Amino acid sequence: MSKGNINVSVENIFPLIKKFLYSDHEIFLRELISNATDATTKLKHLISIGEAKVELGDAKIEINIDKDAKTLTIKDQGLGMTAEEVEKYINQIAFSGAEEFLEKYKDDKNETGVIGHFGLGFYSAFMVADKVEIITKSFKGDKAAHWTCDGSPEYTLVEHDKEGRGTEIILHIAEDSTEFLEDGKISGLLTKYNRFNQVPIKFGTKEETLPLPEGAAEDVTPEKVTVDNIINNTNPAWTKKPADLEDEDYTNFYRELYPMQFEESLFHIHLNVDYPFNLTGILYFPKLSQNMDMQKDRIQLYQNQVFVTDNVEGIVPDFLQMLKGVIDSPDIPLNVSRSYLQADGAVKKISGYITKKVADKLSSLFKNNREDFEAKWNDIKVIIEYGMLSEEKFFDKAKKFALYPTVDDTYFTFDELLEKTKDAQTDKDGNHIVLYAANKDAQHGYIQDAKEKGYEILLLDSPIVSHLMQKLETSNDKVKFTRVDADHIDNLIKKDDTVISKLSDEEKETLKPMIEASVPKETYTVQLEAMDSNASPFLITVPEFMRRMKEMNATGGGMMGMGNLPEMYNLVVNTNHELVGEILNTKTEKKRNRLINQAFDLAKLSQNLLHGEELTNFIKRSYDLIK
Amino acid sequence: MSKGNINVSVENIFPLIKKFLYSDHEIFLRELISNATDATTKLKHLISIGEAKVELGDAKIEINIDKDAKTLTIKDQGLGMTAEEVEKYINQIAFSGAEEFLEKYKDDKNETGVIGHFGLGFYSAFMVADKVEIITKSFKGDKAAHWTCDGSPEYTLVEHDKEGRGTEIILHIAEDSTEFLEDGKISGLLTKYNRFNQVPIKFGTKEETLPLPEGAAEDVTPEKVTVDNIINNTNPAWTKKPADLEDEDYTNFYRELYPMQFEESLFHIHLNVDYPFNLTGILYFPKLSQNMDMQKDRIQLYQNQVFVTDNVEGIVPDFLQMLKGVIDSPDIPLNVSRSYLQADGAVKKISGYITKKVADKLSSLFKNNREDFEAKWNDIKVIIEYGMLSEEKFFDKAKKFALYPTVDDTYFTFDELLEKTKDAQTDKDGNHIVLYAANKDAQHGYIQDAKEKGYEILLLDSPIVSHLMQKLETSNDKVKFTRVDADHIDNLIKKDDTVISKLSDEEKETLKPMIEASVPKETYTVQLEAMDSNASPFLITVPEFMRRMKEMNATGGGMMGMGNLPEMYNLVVNTNHELVGEILNTKTEKKRNRLINQAFDLAKLSQNLLHGEELTNFIKRSYDLIK
Repeated sequence: MSKGNINVSVENIFPLIKKFLYSDHEIFLRELISNATDATTKLKHLISIGEAKVELGDAKIEINIDKDAKTLTIKDQGLGMTAEEVEKYINQIAFSGAEEFLEKYKDDKNETGVIGHFGLGFYSAFMVADKVEIITKSFKGDKAAHWTCDGSPEYTLVEHDKEGRGTEIILHIAEDSTEFLEDGKISGLLTKYNRFNQVPIKFGTKEETLPLPEGAAEDVTPEKVTVDNIINNTNPAWTKKPADLEDEDYTNFYRELYPMQFEESLFHIHLNVDYPFNLTGILYFPKLSQNMDMQKDRIQLYQNQVFVTDNVEGIVPDFLQMLKGVIDSPDIPLNVSRSYLQADGAVKKISGYITKKVADKLSSLFKNNREDFEAKWNDIKVIIEYGMLSEEKFFDKAKKFALYPTVDDTYFTFDELLEKTKDAQTDKDGNHIVLYAANKDAQHGYIQDAKEKGYEILLLDSPIVSHLMQKLETSNDKVKFTRVDADHIDNLIKKDDTVISKLSDEEKETLKPMIEASVPKETYTVQLEAMDSNASPFLITVPEFMRRMKEMNATGGGMMGMGNLPEMYNLVVNTNHELVGEILNTKTEKKRNRLINQAFDLAKLSQNLLHGEELTNFIKRSYDLIK
Repeated sequence: MSKGNINVSVENIFPLIKKFLYSDHEIFLRELISNATDATTKLKHLISIGEAKVELGDAKIEINIDKDAKTLTIKDQGLGMTAEEVEKYINQIAFSGAEEFLEKYKDDKNETGVIGHFGLGFYSAFMVADKVEIITKSFKGDKAAHWTCDGSPEYTLVEHDKEGRGTEIILHIAEDSTEFLEDGKISGLLTKYNRFNQVPIKFGTKEETLPLPEGAAEDVTPEKVTVDNIINNTNPAWTKKPADLEDEDYTNFYRELYPMQFEESLFHIHLNVDYPFNLTGILYFPKLSQNMDMQKDRIQLYQNQVFVTDNVEGIVPDFLQMLKGVIDSPDIPLNVSRSYLQADGAVKKISGYITKKVADKLSSLFKNNREDFEAKWNDIKVIIEYGMLSEEKFFDKAKKFALYPTVDDTYFTFDELLEKTKDAQTDKDGNHIVLYAANKDAQHGYIQDAKEKGYEILLLDSPIVSHLMQKLETSNDKVKFTRVDADHIDNLIKKDDTVISKLSDEEKETLKPMIEASVPKETYTVQLEAMDSNASPFLITVPEFMRRMKEMNATGGGMMGMGNLPEMYNLVVNTNHELVGEILNTKTEKKRNRLINQAFDLAKLSQNLLHGEELTNFIKRSYDLIK
């Protein structure tokens, strides 16, 4: 038997790191800036606890491109390293300096804000550079060290006469990565990953015009000075206390985050928790927009103010994915599969916390300024309805503030609606009928008829509302949702009173086959009804159950196979209408059919069912009628 | 100055490999099966060149789950390893055995079909197991070796009395990965990654009913036998020569690849090239489908018959992403960023090759069976039109077979169409007008009018067709596309003949303000025209240029800002129509307005512009007219 240690040979692992460490090569810049940031915040911490006796000054990180030398340099004024530390931290791949540091100062963990998680980040430099130099001088005062490595595992380490404290990483950019010598590329990466970095980052300079001294003559040329171009805001709004921020600060941060977005947000939610997990952030409810760019602006995930991703699937509940804003948490595991993420306990708690904060914010908006909440309802309803369907806890909170607008723009909560309509809209069997329309224009005629009866008609037009109705019917026994065109007005909410038919049973028996002969029987069921003589003579209705199941099928759910059933309608014929009497009494078949066809076409028009050749013929016939 | 080698400490790198080697832990099974496959195909190769003097037998790979012992075992009958080889290949992380093998036998490279690219695959076992054993016996005949490692870098290596040749990997599944002890989970992974593996994979057993011997009595119970459950097809269609396959084989493979897909494919393209890159595969043109599951069935990318991904972005041109099927190429670099992939020379060539093969196939279908090609056009047109817009080389080929169907289902190529229509549809300025409709139903009236003139009307209803028209107009100087409702029939294709107006100029001057007063002037421009007295009295037209720019905006492109312009229409009044004369001569304003409104509403109906309250009022008015 033999025992031994598994070996990792650097010759073999080095090419792998270069090629596969990150599938996205551009990450190297974020990694090196994170190291520089760590070096600076660590020094700040050591100064604050008296372990480093130096001045921090306005320590910043400088990025420089030298096109002629083909180098990109990242320079900080942080801790720096002694030659021994270079040996220890750099020459040992995957020696995690950050973890050692955190371990040592673990009681102050939350204040240190260290980004790095393991020591591989530095080596990502070799993804884009064929030679890397480190020139570094420790705050402890030793002579500076100069490390050089050409991507083979061999390095050299010599002394250097660098004066100032800190570390300078010089990347000799490889032939296949020259894009990283372009100002535009680097500036784009800095904006993407580091625009809220904790330590100021300087990239080049810019000219600034000084303000004229007061009372200066008009022809004095204002003085221009060259200043550092600092690309980041080190104190973004989400890192501040809510109490220290005004509404305007939130609005300004929204603009800062999405500069290409011209719509303002509707309202914000400031997230701020440090137990049992650490999370800060600001979420915004956006205005609904067809703008595709707007849909690309997603919630951004940061860790210690460094951008990680804008894919927050698993972290933010699905129904809140349409929100905008920022989440910053060092506690979200990265580089793990989505399924792992969704099973992770800490991440589940984060998701639950976000849901609760959103529900609380909505509830307080509803209570404190209902008028404003109503004005915003149309923009937020899809998110809320989706949440009510997907998270039971959210449903329980939201049912108190979810709104149901009528076609006349009155907004009820569900309880208010039931209270308001219970007398007029309870049918003879005790069912409380909630009437609704999906489209004010398309169902205009039907809405008018229902309004004349004094009914309230909701306008429910979001795509998943049929699922919500189903849920509300299930949890409220006697409540039934019915669309205004589901039946003729006297049947929508059946009362005890009956209208007497002007036609005798015999006449009805004569009439029915006359009409059936002119109507495609596989699609339309003819139904004779004694209605008000002022109601329409012909009316097409769409039974509620089938229609809703078909709609639910279209958005997922509903009853299997219902989606494929053909469209079925009822043709309601009002036996008390003058025209129907005329049809019955017209002796010539041709004239009678003309009446039936014209009335049937008009009923179809009212349900948007008259198209193509039928419509062309109807229009021709109608011109003949008026001229 | 000091010199030295960068060190990789195994204590540091090992946890990283366990956690970060693959973001998707399930990959471990694919990796271990790939190693087992390599071991088997390598042995086969050594036998074939006489370097191994053993029988291959029906070498297969066996997967076993032992729920009580909490182990998952992968066992092959391949090369096996001697104790020294275990030391060399396993104990040195990232020692790439496969590359060494390929280097040695590089002249036979294409026949060996080795999968592994570097030695890290085996270590992925530690992502799901807290202890791993290897029991292996080399084909060379040495005593078997037994290697054990509990995830620390320490291992033990002892002799073992295993008799048969090959390697057995035993994973002691970790507490957080017990899902990999479920039959369903493993069977799902085998189907996903290995259903076309080169070496047979056995997972459990199944019962098979033996056929009854001929002439057996009816009451004889057929004998049942237990046989190995082989989960893979080692010779999928794409690995065969096109000459050895019938149409039916391709159809069967389509069903094998997408068992949940009930529609058959339209036709297939067999890809088979070995220089300058290696690629095999079969692509299918699917039937258009609203079925979401169908849209999830995407082109699958394999490497040596192991599934890699169904995201072929960058490899297959964008316009062919809707195709189905399989691509197998060892030459596509994996684990690299998409932008790198798109810049890679080999990948560009692959993409170009696929485009060319698709164009050639379409061209030969068109030439060999035009009737069939026409029947399939509706299903394939979006793909072809998108390709014509996005790849100039494809456009040059496709312009010879791209079809333009008319509203009467005649299919022209562009050249045939120009030839057929050049006499009737060239206007007085020499412009060749191609008329089209977007919807047979919605534009029915307009189509009828144009047909009566003997014009051909195309039916162009795919979403990007407006961009294609723009391109065709640019490359064919005098050709102009015009939708049938862009103007009244006499103006669509202007000829020299003029219709005499029944109204005098004075009468026209009286009529125009009468109509303008009843029509919203911000949306409608009233235009008096002397037309055929049988044409419609009122007609709403939509000028071509504005409409098309708006449409192009909606699908990307077009002229900036055009998308936001309001809808603008022309109301064409036919001064030769009887009704228009009547309007002019009606003295009472009320009666005149009723005529104008009814005619205007009918014109709106014909363009689907009459909705809501306007429609309800129109219907009421129309009932009054007929009763």
